[in-house]
Amino acid sequence: MTTIKDVARHAGVSVATVSRVINEAGYVHEDTRRKVENAIQELNYTPNEVARSLYKRKSRLIGLLLPDITNPYFPQLARGVEDRMQESGFRLIFGNSDESQSKEQDYIQTFVQNNVVGVISSTNDPGSLSYRSLKIPVVFLDRISSDRPAVYADGREGGRMAAQQMVQRGSRQITVMQGPAHIRPAQDRFQGAIEALQDMGMSYQITQTTSFSFTEADRWARELFEQYPDTDGVIASNDITAAAVIQEAHRLSKRIPADIQIIGFDDTPLSNLLSPALSTIRQPAYDMGRAAADLLIQLIEGTAGEQRTIQMPVQFIERATTRSLS
Amino acid sequence: MTTIKDVARHAGVSVATVSRVINEAGYVHEDTRRKVENAIQELNYTPNEVARSLYKRKSRLIGLLLPDITNPYFPQLARGVEDRMQESGFRLIFGNSDESQSKEQDYIQTFVQNNVVGVISSTNDPGSLSYRSLKIPVVFLDRISSDRPAVYADGREGGRMAAQQMVQRGSRQITVMQGPAHIRPAQDRFQGAIEALQDMGMSYQITQTTSFSFTEADRWARELFEQYPDTDGVIASNDITAAAVIQEAHRLSKRIPADIQIIGFDDTPLSNLLSPALSTIRQPAYDMGRAAADLLIQLIEGTAGEQRTIQMPVQFIERATTRSLS
Repeated sequence: MTTIKDVARHAGVSVATVSRVINEAGYVHEDTRRKVENAIQELNYTPNEVARSLYKRKSRLIGLLLPDITNPYFPQLARGVEDRMQESGFRLIFGNSDESQSKEQDYIQTFVQNNVVGVISSTNDPGSLSYRSLKIPVVFLDRISSDRPAVYADGREGGRMAAQQMVQRGSRQITVMQGPAHIRPAQDRFQGAIEALQDMGMSYQITQTTSFSFTEADRWARELFEQYPDTDGVIASNDITAAAVIQEAHRLSKRIPADIQIIGFDDTPLSNLLSPALSTIRQPAYDMGRAAADLLIQLIEGTAGEQRTIQMPVQFIERATTRSLS
Repeated sequence: MTTIKDVARHAGVSVATVSRVINEAGYVHEDTRRKVENAIQELNYTPNEVARSLYKRKSRLIGLLLPDITNPYFPQLARGVEDRMQESGFRLIFGNSDESQSKEQDYIQTFVQNNVVGVISSTNDPGSLSYRSLKIPVVFLDRISSDRPAVYADGREGGRMAAQQMVQRGSRQITVMQGPAHIRPAQDRFQGAIEALQDMGMSYQITQTTSFSFTEADRWARELFEQYPDTDGVIASNDITAAAVIQEAHRLSKRIPADIQIIGFDDTPLSNLLSPALSTIRQPAYDMGRAAADLLIQLIEGTAGEQRTIQMPVQFIERATTRSLS
């Protein structure tokens, strides 16, 4: 590989001069600059990013921390972040936190050691010292923070929408699945649904789930129908649990949506491939990822405006697990 | 943040001495070493990884290149890689290639600029100069290479299994979906299925698909039943297309598995949540990711044995889209 020394020798100048040209720092005579630039081109030299980051104390690396990439909601977020970062020449160091604080801290530490210039994190604890003590910009993604930059969807409104659609489309014995207690967006959508049902004067029942995991979704669905065999409407905590509820309803020979309506949350790609296709509340995950990346780049480059928390709209996607309104 | 200068001052030695201790390079008197180590501990100093990588020309960064993290097969692979890398203190720089050669080359270049010590790639072109000219270890994941380290599943055997199960369970007008032509594993499983059907003397029909995308899966399914309305068995190119075939079969009021059997490929988490749950050929994606990481670490550390291509077994997972054998 060509080194900065080769360039200096080829151009007949010192390494320090080449460095000044590359980093656009300090005075270099126009003729000398041209000689160096020609040498760089002729030798097809690529400055070593590590050396540059040491010199300028700046890399083009961003740390991205998500709970678990195997939950089908998160690849969309990650993809949005990556596509936007790629457009501006940033690269991602990626980690899964598994909602574990120690794993999270461990990652943040190595992000810093690798001189990342910014962090995007879907943490459950935006107020923690790990983040407050960071001297680089942080954007929280899919997580609400009142005093730090954040991009998230309007989960409360999403929950309200799901409840209103259920009632408008005729369900009267509605069951709301409460998602994991430690995940704030799950609680927001749950609260929104409960509020709307109370506003409409509807009775309802609640089941608890403690994870969004594929392997446990079956269990939540079985428990739901054991507790409330006559329910005629399920507001699921996300698309995965909704898929399990569809399966269990089939097993119990309930017709969807004639006997029971089901609404998911997220609009992950799988929801359109279920049978019947799942009506759900759409979070614009890919766009949220892009927006977070965009905000972080602005923060890094010092061009961010006053608006540093971005709430994205949610939307009811009508498919085949709800009855038609007409 | 504590710097190496702080450590040197605290220990009463030069920065060069601290550097020699940290990097275990060059002679340092035992007493001096102890002074430096104490200073490091007292000041809670973490060596800057970038500075270390510049000095030692070694980082703890690995480049991981996958086609598209939003295809639900890949998060499993990525998770396996990450979990194994994390155990050994390596971190991942992550990119999606979208099967585009220019994006792939762009990523490889920035991997090198960031001094990664190894690369794991699911490329369609393991023989390309981009890889052959790399001076760091590369492991191909989910891709076969005869002369370079690689971890992949036995796709051909998977295709054979799917065909044998179809025939044993009574399908006689089998349709095989041929996956994208440029993706080698898709062609392997297709060839395996065709071979097995020919060996058994069965007739069959073929439909083409040109992507594994969620948004196009519906189309492949519609085309399949337009071309072959009487098919009674579908060997899908992956779980996503299988999900679309299930939906389309429902729409056409075909009973699954009584009128038509369907077998997917991959065993992504979604396959168990479909209605009916999908019978499929399982690739051990998570384990493949771990195995690739393991092999790469061995190559980096110079402990790899002769066996540098690892073929992982596939397995038929019986669920509810195939008839029972009894």
